[in-house]
Formats: sequence, C-alpha cells, structure tokens
Amino acid sequence: MYPFSEGSFAVRNGWYVAGFSADLGSEPIARTILGMPVALYRKADGTAVAVGGRCPHRNFPLGKSCVKGDDIVCGYHGIAFGPDGKCTDIPSQKVVPGSYQIPTYPLVEHGMWLWIWPGDPENADPAKLPDLEAIGYADPTMHAVPMFTHEVACRYQLLNDNLLDLSHLAFLHASSIGNLENATVPEETSQEPGILRSRRYIKDAPPIPSLRERMGEGFRVDQVVGMDFYLPGFHAGIGDHFYSASDPDRPGEAIQISRVFHAVTPATPTSCYYFFGLASLDRSEAEARRARLADVIDEDIFASVEIEKMIGLMGGAPDELMIKSDRNAVLGRRMLQAMMDAEGEEEEPFAAA
Amino acid sequence: MYPFSEGSFAVRNGWYVAGFSADLGSEPIARTILGMPVALYRKADGTAVAVGGRCPHRNFPLGKSCVKGDDIVCGYHGIAFGPDGKCTDIPSQKVVPGSYQIPTYPLVEHGMWLWIWPGDPENADPAKLPDLEAIGYADPTMHAVPMFTHEVACRYQLLNDNLLDLSHLAFLHASSIGNLENATVPEETSQEPGILRSRRYIKDAPPIPSLRERMGEGFRVDQVVGMDFYLPGFHAGIGDHFYSASDPDRPGEAIQISRVFHAVTPATPTSCYYFFGLASLDRSEAEARRARLADVIDEDIFASVEIEKMIGLMGGAPDELMIKSDRNAVLGRRMLQAMMDAEGEEEEPFAAA
Amino acid sequence: MYPFSEGSFAVRNGWYVAGFSADLGSEPIARTILGMPVALYRKADGTAVAVGGRCPHRNFPLGKSCVKGDDIVCGYHGIAFGPDGKCTDIPSQKVVPGSYQIPTYPLVEHGMWLWIWPGDPENADPAKLPDLEAIGYADPTMHAVPMFTHEVACRYQLLNDNLLDLSHLAFLHASSIGNLENATVPEETSQEPGILRSRRYIKDAPPIPSLRERMGEGFRVDQVVGMDFYLPGFHAGIGDHFYSASDPDRPGEAIQISRVFHAVTPATPTSCYYFFGLASLDRSEAEARRARLADVIDEDIFASVEIEKMIGLMGGAPDELMIKSDRNAVLGRRMLQAMMDAEGEEEEPFAAA
Repeated sequence: MYPFSEGSFAVRNGWYVAGFSADLGSEPIARTILGMPVALYRKADGTAVAVGGRCPHRNFPLGKSCVKGDDIVCGYHGIAFGPDGKCTDIPSQKVVPGSYQIPTYPLVEHGMWLWIWPGDPENADPAKLPDLEAIGYADPTMHAVPMFTHEVACRYQLLNDNLLDLSHLAFLHASSIGNLENATVPEETSQEPGILRSRRYIKDAPPIPSLRERMGEGFRVDQVVGMDFYLPGFHAGIGDHFYSASDPDRPGEAIQISRVFHAVTPATPTSCYYFFGLASLDRSEAEARRARLADVIDEDIFASVEIEKMIGLMGGAPDELMIKSDRNAVLGRRMLQAMMDAEGEEEEPFAAA
Repeated sequence: MYPFSEGSFAVRNGWYVAGFSADLGSEPIARTILGMPVALYRKADGTAVAVGGRCPHRNFPLGKSCVKGDDIVCGYHGIAFGPDGKCTDIPSQKVVPGSYQIPTYPLVEHGMWLWIWPGDPENADPAKLPDLEAIGYADPTMHAVPMFTHEVACRYQLLNDNLLDLSHLAFLHASSIGNLENATVPEETSQEPGILRSRRYIKDAPPIPSLRERMGEGFRVDQVVGMDFYLPGFHAGIGDHFYSASDPDRPGEAIQISRVFHAVTPATPTSCYYFFGLASLDRSEAEARRARLADVIDEDIFASVEIEKMIGLMGGAPDELMIKSDRNAVLGRRMLQAMMDAEGEEEEPFAAA
Repeated sequence: MYPFSEGSFAVRNGWYVAGFSADLGSEPIARTILGMPVALYRKADGTAVAVGGRCPHRNFPLGKSCVKGDDIVCGYHGIAFGPDGKCTDIPSQKVVPGSYQIPTYPLVEHGMWLWIWPGDPENADPAKLPDLEAIGYADPTMHAVPMFTHEVACRYQLLNDNLLDLSHLAFLHASSIGNLENATVPEETSQEPGILRSRRYIKDAPPIPSLRERMGEGFRVDQVVGMDFYLPGFHAGIGDHFYSASDPDRPGEAIQISRVFHAVTPATPTSCYYFFGLASLDRSEAEARRARLADVIDEDIFASVEIEKMIGLMGGAPDELMIKSDRNAVLGRRMLQAMMDAEGEEEEPFAAA
C-alpha cells in the first residue's frame, strides 16, 4: 500500500516501541501492533511482557483486563494466561488443556521504552535495538523524559516521511521551532545498515521563534538539526542551538541542547502510534518546553492525518512529484521496502473489512 | 456471519421485542429490525402497530414522522399510510393508487413489551410468545418495570452469548452482582422446543458485593441464578439471594428476589437493540437498584462492543477456543442456527455497502 | 448512482457555487468539488482563483495552507504555486522544474458567489452563469445576503430533489414557512435549455405560521411560491406574500417579499455543500429572519441526511413510488442525466475506498 508496493504494509522483523516503560504499571495496556491485538503487562517481579491481546475464548481484549501475579486474567470470564502464553486457569473448570494458549511477543525494556518484536521471535535479537549512547539517551549530562503518546489516524509512513524530511520545520512549525534555513541549508545524509542519518549544519541564522520569544532579538545562532532513523520505527534527533560563532560576546556558546526521540509503530493500515520523548540538560527545562512541544507534535499529527484523508479522497494511491529534499525520505522508504521484500510474502494481517 | 454459518444472519420467523409498551406514546418510534426499517406507532384507539419505516416515495423515515388518527404521515411530503400499510392520503393529488403501500408487521403487546414478527406474517402465532407466568412476569407478588433501552454497536449474538453464559458474572461484574461461585458452581441446563434453561444453585457462599455494601459482612447466602432463553431473542432470568440454610438466625430467609428480562433484537449486521427490565418485590426497590444495574448493563455492553471491534480487527471470523462452560451458549447458537437453516435461503437483507 | 444511472455521479461541465465571495478573505478555503480537492484563494489584487487543493509533493491540502502575494504556499514544506498552477518556489532547491504544477479551475465572482467550473475549462463560458436579473439578485429594491454554508452528509441530488418539489413546505416546514396549499395548489412548470421553473400561485389562503406569529390572525393571503433550477446546481426561488385580493382593507398589498438562493455542489458521492442566501427588502429584515431560516434549512438537511442513511440501509438503490407532484423533480433529474450522458464516459472520480 502507498507509499510502498502493493501488498507491502510494514516490516515485521524489527523492534518497535510499544510504549513508555513509565506508563506500564499494574494495569495492562492494549495495543494493536501491525494489525495484531497485543496486551502489555508487568509480572509480579516487574518484568514487562507482551502477549496476544485477544482472549481466544470469546475475543475479549486482554489489554483491557487485569493482572494477577504473573498472569493476565480476562475481564470477561476470568481465564488466565501466563507470560509464556499458556493458560493457567479456567475458573469454571478444573482441567486446563495444554493447547489453550495465546501468542507471546518478545518485549524488552531499553532506555525509557518498551520494545516489541512482532515478527519471528527467533530473530528478536536485543543487539538490534538502537544503541542508547548513539541515540543520545545515555548521555549523563542530559535528562530524558517521555512526552506524548498518541494514536494517530494515519498510516505510519506519513509520520516517518515527516521525520525523514526536516525541511518541514521551516513551514509547518514556522511559528515555533523552524526557520527558513531548515529548508534552504543543504542536508547531509549517510547510511549504514538499518540506520539513515540526516544533518543540517546551519550557520549564523536568525534564531527560531521559540528562542526569540524567550530571549528577545539581536543575536544570531548556529544550529545543528538532524535525525537518525533506526529502522523500522525509531528516530533519534538532535536540535542544538548556539550563539553564532561570530557573536561578539558569546561566540559558540550553547543556548539550547536537545535530543528528541520519535517512535512510530504501525497499528492498522491507516493508524499508528506516535511516542515522543525529549532529553534536555535538566528536567525542569524539559517540563518548561512540554506545552510548546505539544503544539509542535500536534502540527505534525494534523499534517499527517490531513494527508491520510487526502489519500483516501484520491482513492488510495496518489501520484507524487518528488523534489531534491525528498532524497532522505525516499532512501528511508527504499530501505523499509527492501526489508519488507526480504521478509517475503506473509499472511496478510488484515482481512477484508 | 460469525458465530453462525456464512450467510446466516438471524432467525426471521420469531417474536422479537421492538420496545417497551410504555415508551410508545403519541410519537412514532423508528427501529431497524433485522435490517428492515420499521415504524412503530399507536392508532387512535391506542393499538400499537408496526409498519415499514421507509416512505416509498422519497425514502424518508416514517418512524421520524408523525401520527394522525390511525395513520402515520410522512414528515417530508405528507403521504399517509394506514395500519394496514395502504396509502390513505397523498396531499398533492386527489387519487390514491391502490398499489401505493408499505409493508406491515405483526405486532402485539404482551407483558410490558411490544413484540414484532419480522418473518412470514402467516406464522406469527401469539401462542409462540413467551408465557408471562413462566418467565416470572405475571407473578402478582412482583413488580416489573422497564429499565433501559440501548442501541448497541455489536452483532446481536454477542449479547446472547453474554446472557447464555452467566459465569461472566464472576469477573465482568465482580464489583457488583458477581461472586466466584457464579463461575465455579456447575451449571444445570435443560432444553425444550424453543427454550434453553440454565441454573446455578449456589450454597453457603459469600454474598455478592452489592449485598455486602448494603448489609455489611458476617453472613453467607444461598443463591439461585439462571436464565431461560426464549428463542430467538428473549432471556428471562432469576437472581434470588437467601440467608444460607446454615445461618444461625434466619436460615433460608429471602434477602433479594429478582426476575430480569433481557431482550436482544438484531438491527444491522453489527448492531442490535438491548432492552432490559426488572421485576422486584416492590417498585421502590426496583428504582433503588436502577443506578447500579445501569452500570452492570453498561459492563455487558462494553464487553460486547469491545468484542465486536476485535472481530473487526481479526477480519470478521476469529477462531474460538471453547471451554466446558460454553456448553449452554453453544447449545443456544446451535438452536438458532437450526432455526435459520430451517428457514432456508432468503434474500440477503443487507446489500453491499 | 441513485437516483441516476449506474456510473453517473454529477455533471462536470457546469458552473457550481464554491462559496460566498464574502467568505473568501486572506486565508484559502479547502473544498472537495466533484471528488476533486480544490483550494480557493485571493491573489494580491483580490482576484479569486481556484487551484487543485492537493500539493503534488506530499498530498498536503493547499486549502489548509496559506497565501503569499499571488501564490498559495503549501503549509507543509513551503512549495508555492501561482494562480496559473505553476510552481513558483521550492524553498529547498534553486531550480523549479517547469513540469511541477497543479490543476487550475475556472472561477468567477458573480453576484455574491464564487462559481467554479470543474469540467473542461474550454467550455467555461461565463455566459452560462445564471443571469443576475433573472434570478432576482440584481433587483435594486432588494438586499441580498449570504446566510448559511453547510457541508451535508448526503448525495447532492437529495437536496436538489428537495428544492425541486416544494410541496414539502406543507409538511417538513409546517411549523414555519409552509401551509397546506403548498402541496394542494397545482404547480406550473416550464422548461428552457438549462433551466427548469416551477410556480404555485396560491389564492386567499391562511397565512403561513411565521406570518401568523408576527401579525396575528384574521387575515388571508395570496402567495407566489416557486423555484427556478439553473442546472446543474443553483436554485433561485421566490416566496411572496400579499394580503388577499379579497382583503377588505389592503387587498393585494405586499406583506413579505423574498428571493431565496440555494446552491448545491457535489463534494463526494455521499456529501455535498449547501449554500443558502436571501434577498429581502432591506438588510434588517433579512437579519431578523436569519434564526428562523436556520431552522428551516436545518429541517431540509435533516430530511436529506435521514434519506441518505435510509439509502445506505437499503443497499444503495431503493425503489421509489412516484406521485404526480414528482413531475418537476423527475424533469430535473432527467435534465441532469441527459447532461451527464452527453458528457460521455469520464474517468471515475472516486476510486474504491
């Protein structure tokens, strides 16, 4: 499906963010991951696990049920399943058939995220998770916090496209975090297996509106803006602002240092999850920026949902006229398509409505 | 369609509840019964009738129109139809063609309900209505009141499944009307033509939460809990609580005596009506229980709608893993399927969307 | 599609109202016109133009973007297009390929409306616009004002059907602007190329409810009620009320003189725009009638949306039983069908959902 080849929906063999660790407490969480119902919960010892989110008895969502000890207990008729997916209790009978079970999914906590592997569990190697140092999460001078969890009414690739082309900062976020240089300064990109990097080094530019509002006029900045796409669904970004190297008083001094973490996880063909987190120099700065960043993320969601509606109006597969700045997004799409092609034909996760 | 065989939607030749008698006043009511638009109204003498709910002139809903004398008058262009379905007036012309008419449906008031027969009118025998004594409605010591009318976004059988397996009381309603014994005490079922009965006789159990809240702790109860399914869409239930036979002070004394009446009527393939009524020893008791029962019914609706969504996510026909307590629900489904099979192929009431 | 032949959706070669002139300011407006995304905006000199509403780069809606000078600038990545559809700026690159462009649509301001021509631009002759004198807009004694813009969840023809059969005033608007004579007095219709006229000359009738409320009882009226359908989507109506010619005191004296302007523009197969305007003897009278007319238009929308839902329930193509008063609506449908047939097969604007 657009923008991939017909029949291609999403890479299955990859780590996707299923949520923030901090959001998974004593209640389970229901998610739809690549078309599959999933329940996330914590065992008695706190270990997070992911199991099939559909009770095989009567199709009630286990993710809207409850947890007892190590088990998830269906809220409808009380059938319980362990973290290995095996049924542990059917309250209305004494014998539990060994065949009574639900799927399980590899789930690991890594950084501040819960990562799920919807594909073949044999391949679920934690070594394939994004490196926490490389993404800037492990930096001891920075403080990372979860910001927002959204379920968005658009195909996941529209959010990936958004993150793979930061020239949109200059327009979609013109009132907050963008300046024209985000579009005009040439982008540097580089590829390595499973990662696609993009950077813009902006020199001696007017500060972005959010800095101008806070600090007034009369100074210019150097900026480093970029995003590293860790396929299939994680983007680690950088947004650093310094006094311009030509500033008379404080040349090159840091003004605002940020790492941003965008995770995009396919839900249904036309919906996805969007998890956004931020690392700043201290927690109070992160909190101070929460409200403005909420608006910024809402603008990205607005654009993506509008595009989903437009795709629907155009019958599902609109033409596109590419421009040079699409190079990175096109690379990202190609890398995802290649991963899907390598997975070969799989059973279609979505039946006809 | 799930959980019936492909092409099977609902039994047509049977009495279904179309509403509570008390809710049908001088205004008509619009319903969709087994995919057919229906208008319910009262003639001048108060007799309730059911006619096709679609004005054949311009497709305006007659159920959202008005009544004049014995006729229902389309709210759009004033075309009137009598309770026999024949057009009685076309305001813009003098001659009314004899062929200008709408369908009619057998409708009877029986107990506190309006019962409609969507199938062949020739078969609409009132003797096939549930017996008011047998269902506990006619008991002179009890006072029956309509409680709730809901249009629910799920296929009707999900509510029937709910009512055919009361082991769910132990979990879905664990905070109000269920105790674990609802799931663990063996169920006794029996069948006769058109009726499927289920009972649980619970002995010396802890009282359900709603009784504990009202009466405190320190006593145990005997319970009779059960449901009689009058196919195709009516469930008459019993929920009686007594001090345990081993209670030192009041052995076997009645605490709370209830008859519950659940009517489930197919609307569209994925929606239905749910009419709930209650009989208590007096009206004030019934009213006192209204708020809590609203929560209980909402839990049933929540579960059923969640399951409908899950069925949609699974492409319409999920697998099921049966357990022993499904015996009664499976019997109920089989009886319905047999009735549908006996009706043979009918024109599909729903065209492609 | 109903009520036209299979495959027929709407006349493409015709002027449709896209909005009121007064509503198009410095911000663009997004519309869906016959299935096509369209952006309306004003150039620097105030000229209104219509261009394709989809940015060909990433499918963002240009109608939800912004205007700079003569150009519309995509809100996502800043790509700009001139009123001739040609790309004028791609901020992230220096060269703008000549092939980078969007469609344009003939748009003219005429009366108080913006008129768009969704078909072949070669045929977009302003001489085919409704004559402002003929429709009663240019009358110097009358004051015309825009009233309401609605996006309605029904196929456009249901609103046309409504306007082509004013016998509905007697019932749908019985509490406000209708009396029984609207249905019973014979209709006079006449046709000329592209126009279908209907009139009822009502003599010595009881005044409509809105006049009775304002002026009390004890008088009778003569009325002229009618509608001229300027195909494919504009209806100019008349609603004049006079003291009856037999009134003892003021025979034939005018009470209320109105011209009404209903424009109906197809959006998607099951939605449309409805623009309503009114001309009265003075502006204050028009404003005084705004609230009541809002209710009247809401009744028409209610009926049309209910019918759309009924059509859906009936599988898309319900039978109809015609009556004599349908003559005008049937003529209108036939004229539209003939225009569609003359346009021949075109690419289906809507792909499968």
